[in-house]
Amino acid sequence: MMANKARVWVLAKPFEGDIVHDNFKLVEEELPPVKDGEISIEALYLTVDPYQRVFPVEVGQTPVGQQVARVVESRHSDYPVGKLLLAQVGCRDKTVLDPTEKNRYFIHPFTPPKTVYNLQELGDVSPSLYLGVFGMPGLTGYFGVLDKCQPKPGEVVLVSTAAGAVGSVVGQIAKIKGATVIGSAGSKEKCDWLKEVGFDHVFNYKETSVEDALKEFAPDGVDCYFDNVGGDYAITVLNNMRQNGRFCACGQISQYSLKEKKPVQDILNVIMLRELVVTGHMVYPNLDRFDSARQEMAQWIKEGKLKYKETIREDFLKLPDAMMEIFQGTAIGKLLVKA
Amino acid sequence: MMANKARVWVLAKPFEGDIVHDNFKLVEEELPPVKDGEISIEALYLTVDPYQRVFPVEVGQTPVGQQVARVVESRHSDYPVGKLLLAQVGCRDKTVLDPTEKNRYFIHPFTPPKTVYNLQELGDVSPSLYLGVFGMPGLTGYFGVLDKCQPKPGEVVLVSTAAGAVGSVVGQIAKIKGATVIGSAGSKEKCDWLKEVGFDHVFNYKETSVEDALKEFAPDGVDCYFDNVGGDYAITVLNNMRQNGRFCACGQISQYSLKEKKPVQDILNVIMLRELVVTGHMVYPNLDRFDSARQEMAQWIKEGKLKYKETIREDFLKLPDAMMEIFQGTAIGKLLVKA
Repeated sequence: MMANKARVWVLAKPFEGDIVHDNFKLVEEELPPVKDGEISIEALYLTVDPYQRVFPVEVGQTPVGQQVARVVESRHSDYPVGKLLLAQVGCRDKTVLDPTEKNRYFIHPFTPPKTVYNLQELGDVSPSLYLGVFGMPGLTGYFGVLDKCQPKPGEVVLVSTAAGAVGSVVGQIAKIKGATVIGSAGSKEKCDWLKEVGFDHVFNYKETSVEDALKEFAPDGVDCYFDNVGGDYAITVLNNMRQNGRFCACGQISQYSLKEKKPVQDILNVIMLRELVVTGHMVYPNLDRFDSARQEMAQWIKEGKLKYKETIREDFLKLPDAMMEIFQGTAIGKLLVKA
Repeated sequence: MMANKARVWVLAKPFEGDIVHDNFKLVEEELPPVKDGEISIEALYLTVDPYQRVFPVEVGQTPVGQQVARVVESRHSDYPVGKLLLAQVGCRDKTVLDPTEKNRYFIHPFTPPKTVYNLQELGDVSPSLYLGVFGMPGLTGYFGVLDKCQPKPGEVVLVSTAAGAVGSVVGQIAKIKGATVIGSAGSKEKCDWLKEVGFDHVFNYKETSVEDALKEFAPDGVDCYFDNVGGDYAITVLNNMRQNGRFCACGQISQYSLKEKKPVQDILNVIMLRELVVTGHMVYPNLDRFDSARQEMAQWIKEGKLKYKETIREDFLKLPDAMMEIFQGTAIGKLLVKA
């Protein structure tokens, strides 16, 4: 049996501006004994996602966050020792919980209703993938591109943060659907990987402005834009969309660390005249379609049509560094911490 | 036979800021003889709509605009003398044309493809209604509220410029669909009329801010907003929409006369988190559904569920005044000029 103490990263100072080490404090927490119907779990992989700073918790509480965990002690027959689970318990390495309980971080509709979920059987895949391509980011991309962007053969699809865990799925699925896909990312390494996985056009937004890239790669405009960055980038794309274009607002990573958001061009007139559809996208309203979505993606992976990458940082103690890193954009694909 | 001279209002000075008399000049135009296959028409009613300033033409040309006209001379057997037509020939009282010709003002997708259309048979109705409730404005409201807003029973629908030719249709159809409907307008007379036709809540935006009105009438937020005004009003509503709300961007009358548009709050984050659908709306892509839409509206009118109002200014020479008036908001319902 494991030591009965959990390590928990808690918020020491509310997020404001860039994330810094001072935002976090590591505390030790005495775990209660496992009662009838309860289990004790231990984190294997912890997710690192931009949304973790968007839903900050109170000082002293652990930021929201999912983990793939293993049951290490069980008094519930459906959850034997060794079983792997997806748990949303925040940034902590060990947890005693009732696996049937409601979500500890239930912020409807942004989080699923239960605290733990079984990992869907998808063959011999790393459990870490349930935080990436088969997890919240991959599913966000899957439903976003299919339901909100609805790319058609020959259409031009643009994806920002295209080398990330969401964007890379979006771009590749748009390719599967027959679109011409443009992706932007912030390093040569990322751009190279995007070319490798089949993006038609790629640009490094730190070197090429989105205006220039669109002039070159989408001179007749963009049919679908999957927005992960917001701000001026998004406004520029809106002004370069084609009639009946679809704009999926999925993330605004350029905005989360700003102390004050700046006003932008009023784009309602553009939306009206071009008959655009600008849609906000969250993944969890699609919870009942997660299993079939994962199965379709697993099939695409098997066929070599969908590729993914993981960037795994070792050690639970590196979690704050990884949360800083996700905003620095240094990692390719899904960023994770291995506990 | 009529005199062979047409009076034509042409643009004397491009629209900039508020519309003034100096923007217009009346010219006389010698009409050509009616050739085989052609007809000569005379305007009965001319439309006055905000969009006429949004699509300004070159100096010396007549602004875009529809009219209900009567055939006064004919050398085309399908268009006998006396027949009534809907013609998009701009702000002129007489016109010689080939009734099979393509639209003289074809600015895809904002105008329909032909210059003249037959008036659909809807019983004993005033031909002026084909510019109002059965015309572009009424159909704009019909398709906008049904396709883009999709109001459901019990939902809260807000309409701006609710006493106008578009807004009044939107609000009443939302009522027919079982929604609770809030409308705003700019005078007591307009607000009284809206209460009369069944709006649940009405406010005069010159006396009550949209913030205050929403606090009072939609404390839990708005499900659907049909936007005819744009600007700060629209942004305030966006910030007060419920999860999965629908925002139909149909007009920005508050913006058309501004010399410079001012930046607004960046609302992509609100769109994302609330999973809003912000849709641009134009009426003519629905051209093939116009007939059935008019029939359904005619039925609602017969049943007393849909009411309309016309404000008719006499005399072709008053057209510039009426175009100023549409931006001053003094008329209730559909504003027309009787030639």
